[in-house]
Amino acid sequence: MTTQDPPSDINLDLGRGQRIGIEEAVLAEPKSTAQLTTILEHAFEAGKPILLTRLATSQFLALPSTLRADLDHDPVSGTAYFGAVAEPTSPARTAVVCAGTSDRPVAAEAERTLRFAGHAALSISDVGVAGLWRVLDRVDELAAMDVVIVVAGMDGALPTVLAGLVPGMIIAVPTSVGYGVSDGGRTALHASLASCGPGLVVVNIDNGYGAATSALRVLRLTDR
Amino acid sequence: MTTQDPPSDINLDLGRGQRIGIEEAVLAEPKSTAQLTTILEHAFEAGKPILLTRLATSQFLALPSTLRADLDHDPVSGTAYFGAVAEPTSPARTAVVCAGTSDRPVAAEAERTLRFAGHAALSISDVGVAGLWRVLDRVDELAAMDVVIVVAGMDGALPTVLAGLVPGMIIAVPTSVGYGVSDGGRTALHASLASCGPGLVVVNIDNGYGAATSALRVLRLTDR
Amino acid sequence: MTTQDPPSDINLDLGRGQRIGIEEAVLAEPKSTAQLTTILEHAFEAGKPILLTRLATSQFLALPSTLRADLDHDPVSGTAYFGAVAEPTSPARTAVVCAGTSDRPVAAEAERTLRFAGHAALSISDVGVAGLWRVLDRVDELAAMDVVIVVAGMDGALPTVLAGLVPGMIIAVPTSVGYGVSDGGRTALHASLASCGPGLVVVNIDNGYGAATSALRVLRLTDR
Amino acid sequence: MTTQDPPSDINLDLGRGQRIGIEEAVLAEPKSTAQLTTILEHAFEAGKPILLTRLATSQFLALPSTLRADLDHDPVSGTAYFGAVAEPTSPARTAVVCAGTSDRPVAAEAERTLRFAGHAALSISDVGVAGLWRVLDRVDELAAMDVVIVVAGMDGALPTVLAGLVPGMIIAVPTSVGYGVSDGGRTALHASLASCGPGLVVVNIDNGYGAATSALRVLRLTDR
Amino acid sequence: MTTQDPPSDINLDLGRGQRIGIEEAVLAEPKSTAQLTTILEHAFEAGKPILLTRLATSQFLALPSTLRADLDHDPVSGTAYFGAVAEPTSPARTAVVCAGTSDRPVAAEAERTLRFAGHAALSISDVGVAGLWRVLDRVDELAAMDVVIVVAGMDGALPTVLAGLVPGMIIAVPTSVGYGVSDGGRTALHASLASCGPGLVVVNIDNGYGAATSALRVLRLTDR
Amino acid sequence: MTTQDPPSDINLDLGRGQRIGIEEAVLAEPKSTAQLTTILEHAFEAGKPILLTRLATSQFLALPSTLRADLDHDPVSGTAYFGAVAEPTSPARTAVVCAGTSDRPVAAEAERTLRFAGHAALSISDVGVAGLWRVLDRVDELAAMDVVIVVAGMDGALPTVLAGLVPGMIIAVPTSVGYGVSDGGRTALHASLASCGPGLVVVNIDNGYGAATSALRVLRLTDR
Amino acid sequence: MTTQDPPSDINLDLGRGQRIGIEEAVLAEPKSTAQLTTILEHAFEAGKPILLTRLATSQFLALPSTLRADLDHDPVSGTAYFGAVAEPTSPARTAVVCAGTSDRPVAAEAERTLRFAGHAALSISDVGVAGLWRVLDRVDELAAMDVVIVVAGMDGALPTVLAGLVPGMIIAVPTSVGYGVSDGGRTALHASLASCGPGLVVVNIDNGYGAATSALRVLRLTDR
Amino acid sequence: MTTQDPPSDINLDLGRGQRIGIEEAVLAEPKSTAQLTTILEHAFEAGKPILLTRLATSQFLALPSTLRADLDHDPVSGTAYFGAVAEPTSPARTAVVCAGTSDRPVAAEAERTLRFAGHAALSISDVGVAGLWRVLDRVDELAAMDVVIVVAGMDGALPTVLAGLVPGMIIAVPTSVGYGVSDGGRTALHASLASCGPGLVVVNIDNGYGAATSALRVLRLTDR
Repeated sequence: MTTQDPPSDINLDLGRGQRIGIEEAVLAEPKSTAQLTTILEHAFEAGKPILLTRLATSQFLALPSTLRADLDHDPVSGTAYFGAVAEPTSPARTAVVCAGTSDRPVAAEAERTLRFAGHAALSISDVGVAGLWRVLDRVDELAAMDVVIVVAGMDGALPTVLAGLVPGMIIAVPTSVGYGVSDGGRTALHASLASCGPGLVVVNIDNGYGAATSALRVLRLTDR
Repeated sequence: MTTQDPPSDINLDLGRGQRIGIEEAVLAEPKSTAQLTTILEHAFEAGKPILLTRLATSQFLALPSTLRADLDHDPVSGTAYFGAVAEPTSPARTAVVCAGTSDRPVAAEAERTLRFAGHAALSISDVGVAGLWRVLDRVDELAAMDVVIVVAGMDGALPTVLAGLVPGMIIAVPTSVGYGVSDGGRTALHASLASCGPGLVVVNIDNGYGAATSALRVLRLTDR
Repeated sequence: MTTQDPPSDINLDLGRGQRIGIEEAVLAEPKSTAQLTTILEHAFEAGKPILLTRLATSQFLALPSTLRADLDHDPVSGTAYFGAVAEPTSPARTAVVCAGTSDRPVAAEAERTLRFAGHAALSISDVGVAGLWRVLDRVDELAAMDVVIVVAGMDGALPTVLAGLVPGMIIAVPTSVGYGVSDGGRTALHASLASCGPGLVVVNIDNGYGAATSALRVLRLTDR
Repeated sequence: MTTQDPPSDINLDLGRGQRIGIEEAVLAEPKSTAQLTTILEHAFEAGKPILLTRLATSQFLALPSTLRADLDHDPVSGTAYFGAVAEPTSPARTAVVCAGTSDRPVAAEAERTLRFAGHAALSISDVGVAGLWRVLDRVDELAAMDVVIVVAGMDGALPTVLAGLVPGMIIAVPTSVGYGVSDGGRTALHASLASCGPGLVVVNIDNGYGAATSALRVLRLTDR
Repeated sequence: MTTQDPPSDINLDLGRGQRIGIEEAVLAEPKSTAQLTTILEHAFEAGKPILLTRLATSQFLALPSTLRADLDHDPVSGTAYFGAVAEPTSPARTAVVCAGTSDRPVAAEAERTLRFAGHAALSISDVGVAGLWRVLDRVDELAAMDVVIVVAGMDGALPTVLAGLVPGMIIAVPTSVGYGVSDGGRTALHASLASCGPGLVVVNIDNGYGAATSALRVLRLTDR
Repeated sequence: MTTQDPPSDINLDLGRGQRIGIEEAVLAEPKSTAQLTTILEHAFEAGKPILLTRLATSQFLALPSTLRADLDHDPVSGTAYFGAVAEPTSPARTAVVCAGTSDRPVAAEAERTLRFAGHAALSISDVGVAGLWRVLDRVDELAAMDVVIVVAGMDGALPTVLAGLVPGMIIAVPTSVGYGVSDGGRTALHASLASCGPGLVVVNIDNGYGAATSALRVLRLTDR
Repeated sequence: MTTQDPPSDINLDLGRGQRIGIEEAVLAEPKSTAQLTTILEHAFEAGKPILLTRLATSQFLALPSTLRADLDHDPVSGTAYFGAVAEPTSPARTAVVCAGTSDRPVAAEAERTLRFAGHAALSISDVGVAGLWRVLDRVDELAAMDVVIVVAGMDGALPTVLAGLVPGMIIAVPTSVGYGVSDGGRTALHASLASCGPGLVVVNIDNGYGAATSALRVLRLTDR
Repeated sequence: MTTQDPPSDINLDLGRGQRIGIEEAVLAEPKSTAQLTTILEHAFEAGKPILLTRLATSQFLALPSTLRADLDHDPVSGTAYFGAVAEPTSPARTAVVCAGTSDRPVAAEAERTLRFAGHAALSISDVGVAGLWRVLDRVDELAAMDVVIVVAGMDGALPTVLAGLVPGMIIAVPTSVGYGVSDGGRTALHASLASCGPGLVVVNIDNGYGAATSALRVLRLTDR
């Protein structure tokens, strides 16, 4: 005989946007279909668009089709928008730079989070420092940005190099790309934290969402 | 040619309840169907209800249907009762609080373990400290409890906050929810152990069962 | 030229005792003489006894002699009472058990913290499980206690053995005694967390103070 | 287009038995079907029985049926005998003790390795220290053995307790049973290495084979 | 016979201020007296003020007295200014908050780095979350800041709580305060990285200098 | 509704061969089919052969059949050549030695990388030091090589033994073969780094490609 | 005011020798002068010789001179005999081999522990595998021993090599000699545990005492 | 009473130079004065110059003055030559590059080891990538070298950048410079091992000697 646990209480922090300028998002990865369904129904009733992150395609497909119809799901980044999200109209003040093409999913999570909040992003890929000219070619563009999000796995050398070259806020996002001592992103994380590049800040491994919400804190200041 | 190992000896500690007030439970996860079957047959012969923990649905379904008929299996918590378990009649003296909805399975393991021993629990979900008002709203209820079990992954900040606000026994259960440096629950575990919150105690990652049996030791004292 | 930082602000949590039944204590180890002096002067003005933990003898001796005169410092445990502390009058409801004589300083920190709050403790030393009869001889005494604090380093087997034998609250305090893989107490810590002993809870390595304040939460419940 | 790597060279250490009294065995786990087939064909030509360890049932089933016919495969322990192996005739001088039923596969690997070399084993299961009487009941039997192999995961307290009670060679085999801080067996491993139990030696996590071959070194000495 | 290595080449990055708005600083800790002397002589010749960090008092006292005369050394933070540094004239746009008085040296490093660059800081101490009212009392002040640097050791819960309450840039600085599983600051570091607080960024353990230079990147943007 | 991320920019470092004598290779493992397809199309347009590493058979099979036709894929090593690669004509100046047959895939990656660059390799397998005569028999051959790549997992003792016996460049490649404390190759890695064997250098775990490209740096020098 | 903790209870396990053939020893390192004095006075009253390990010269010198007169202290190994110990009369059945001269203190601890129990040891030093002939020259002597204790730090390759060459019991003692990734002996420890050498057992880092007491368990068996 | 351990056997590997082209060196750090004295007396009798590494100034000063007279000790690198060493006459084919002035001692160990073997080195300091122009200015010089040893702590980004720019053998030496997550050099070590820079090899943390002896293996090949 199998009994069912009732769906757990949902307690969305709907005042967060007003308090700190960042709307609550839902980390989908560890949640069951029942939990995700309940959350989306709450959001629907509150009449607010909501951002889901780390939503696997299999999780997306398991949702009721009525909810799926209102979700704009991007399988590369694993993000989904619930409710309508307008395109940004002003030019990008944030760049999202990634060292290798394998880092693209994390970069895309950052870019989609920015767009959900109404901000465009300049996207630059595959500029790892083993071929240094690739990043030197783009320094002038990057130096004009308010925020530069640098996404890199393995040895994580790119954030240090950029921190010495551009004046805006630099946020390193280590990724879990790599094997052996890459250690699921810990080496890239530690390299950015131990960096001799001045004023470099860091978020959790693969946390494109965290980098983008940090950027939102800065962009809100420069909006004024 | 394939030979079979005979089922291993079973050596249930049936006097444990009398000795320390907590009946033996069976950690199902690493056990084969043959081992689980033998254990349940022993329990059946001893005429005692028994609690199974971390019993996956696939393990449950692989058991003989005659045994399944006597099992009250809850797939969310992975617990099962073998034999009849009465509903608690007195009010809850223990609260089970969890920081996020993703922590529910571990909270449910604690609640089901308490109910197996005849104790109700007050269940509070989704009160993480990033939206602090959610937990502050519930402090008075929690301050009236003998025991507060706090289930939290990621940064594990909730147990520290509660340890400063409520006087009962506070047991932190770190969970494996999170990614990157969450490190399968180690960060939440270490944060609660290193906590500046006074008199906070901790059990193993995801160990809702352990938290509940600790609570039973306290409840037995306050029964007197 | 050397300038001096002004003494930092002190913000003692003087309402803690009323809120949760445990008075604030001061972790002396990382504090400068200037900081400790300021804190004790605040406590003096507030007219409250205060407990200091991890106060090295060298730190104690560096304090102004007028403050030292009001401090009851115990060099073994590194604790000090500032202000008068009465002897407990009722019998011990808590035992503090340690596996080896090298674990005594941590056990003494727990005992002194209990006495500061007005509670006696039964103290049992040198009963490691490599000579099992030593602990079996004391089981009846221990089974009568509300709380048993078990202090053990190296392999930390003693808490598990006791958790199977006595019904009260069992709090393991791993110690940093040992070398090589003892790893500053991490092995004893992990062994107690991973223990098959039911309802065992754990505090940080060498944290006799934390174990005692946890005990105070239980003793407050059984006072009622 | 896909090309195939030729089967790698096989270089069996066929003189090992004569040199050190232990025949070479084959760790099957990381090997491909092609590699295992080549190795068994070499052994067939050399006319020697051979022991395989960590051979998954799926690996066994992928072998040519002609080879399978000569393999005595035990799925619980993951061992297989290639070639005829006689039953031991003399009484057991080695005990294999395990703390929980979940530790049986590793214990079975040790027992099967001993039998391959012509030695019987006394097998004792489910005597974890949380129910201490279970192991105390068997101390006299164990004290009569030349070697006691103790298989235990989680907190690994059983080897320490036995090291204080029996005089023979005691070999701890930590197992990967457990979750959270059990850390794939590292906690049990470290607990046995840091043990206060005198003269306790340790092998790798889950290495029942290693414990048995260590026992063979001792049994060879006591044969003389 | 002892020979001497000639003083190593010095290669100061004197254009850094113009390039990224942050002047080069010198990490004194791992440098010899000879190296520090050479660096200061270079700086003197270049006619630029320079900031030294992690300069122990013993290192300061070992310098030639002529150089010491031009150094404004603060022993609490371990920073020193070489050359004249003016007091900031505009109000503070950055707050430096620390959880415990033991975290003051790291907070002071951040404040002194800001002042070296001409920025005042609002300094708030001893507001750890175990006494939650202490931080709630200051939220309005903090919500008005462009940047909030949060300095906390042990469980590092304060940055998460603040990230949910204030909208400015929040930079967590974990400190090495604590013992046992505090692990030299790694637990506080991991807790902030794994935090559910939105848009929280992190720098290396004890790196008050890094937090301040990150703040300078933001302050430069809001200057425009 | 599901939207698609456009294929990310590709930015191959086509001048690398001229700059440092090693052509860029593509680490296939973390890349999607879309990314691999785009990369191969770029390489086709550039008219250059390209090497792919860590290309799983399932990834190979998912590529368009037109691209597969131009790929020489070796499933053991996981390498593929895109475009024609000639057989080496001169004798081997590099040996690739592996300790156990389980280390063959990594050795094969090194050999295939060398052949892609036009160099033959002497391949020696299954010469682990537990049967020391196996490696001593080959010392003269190895002493004649410019470079010896030593591939070994578990305890990684073979590189140390060879470093004491042969004069050429010795590059250790630890492998992830083994279980328990083998720790995914970290033990073999650390053993080679801590080795008392003089002049031994090391690359990442399982990085046969890295060892081969290091060898190419040496072979280029001895070509002159 | 400073108060003194009374000397802790001493609870020597004086029946251990009769029970398991190994007398209790005292790990001096973490003990205070007061504790050591009390222990020696107990031993004096019991009329038994006692072994102290890890007794630093400074600890030895701090003891009362009357006790020092009865102590045979060896500063290299840090061992001391309290009471008369006779020279062994029969030939050595145990060898203690060390890889480098830096490993001598640990080897000496093993040799002194054996001599305390009446057993001679064959001592062989400085036979690391980077100069392989040094160990090959001694194989015949070693093959005649009942037990071979192999003491090695850094990469710990020597135990693996010997395990393939000699048939007696082989006990590896990793040492904390080395720097960087030697990691206080963990690399040597893990290398011996992960070793492909058959039947190799391991004790804690620097634990010469543990290796010797393991040897005593074997020697007792071969005495019969 | 204190007895003395006789000086341990010394077993220098005097044939190593002939066998592999690298003379044996002595790692002084863990050795006692007695051991070092015996080793130098052996070397004196053998009539061979010998290199000591990691010889602290206090160790040097504790040696007999007659031996000190024959030692050319360099306190920065901690190296000493025993016996006459000629200056190199041919131009440098090896560069030793270090990222920060704090890395100089390790770089000096490499340079002194090369000079002991008769090779000059080009020494370049303080060219960390946070000021990228410093290293770009020197690329042409470095591209002409047979071997480039790159010494860097903290984030270890410099070896990756150089591996993409110069064709010679590149050997990374991570250093223990840094604090917090620099983790005694592990972050720099892992960053170089996980590097996307092609053909980069690595030695142990702070192992300037190991990098130099690796270089000697290459230089011997290019001598031919």
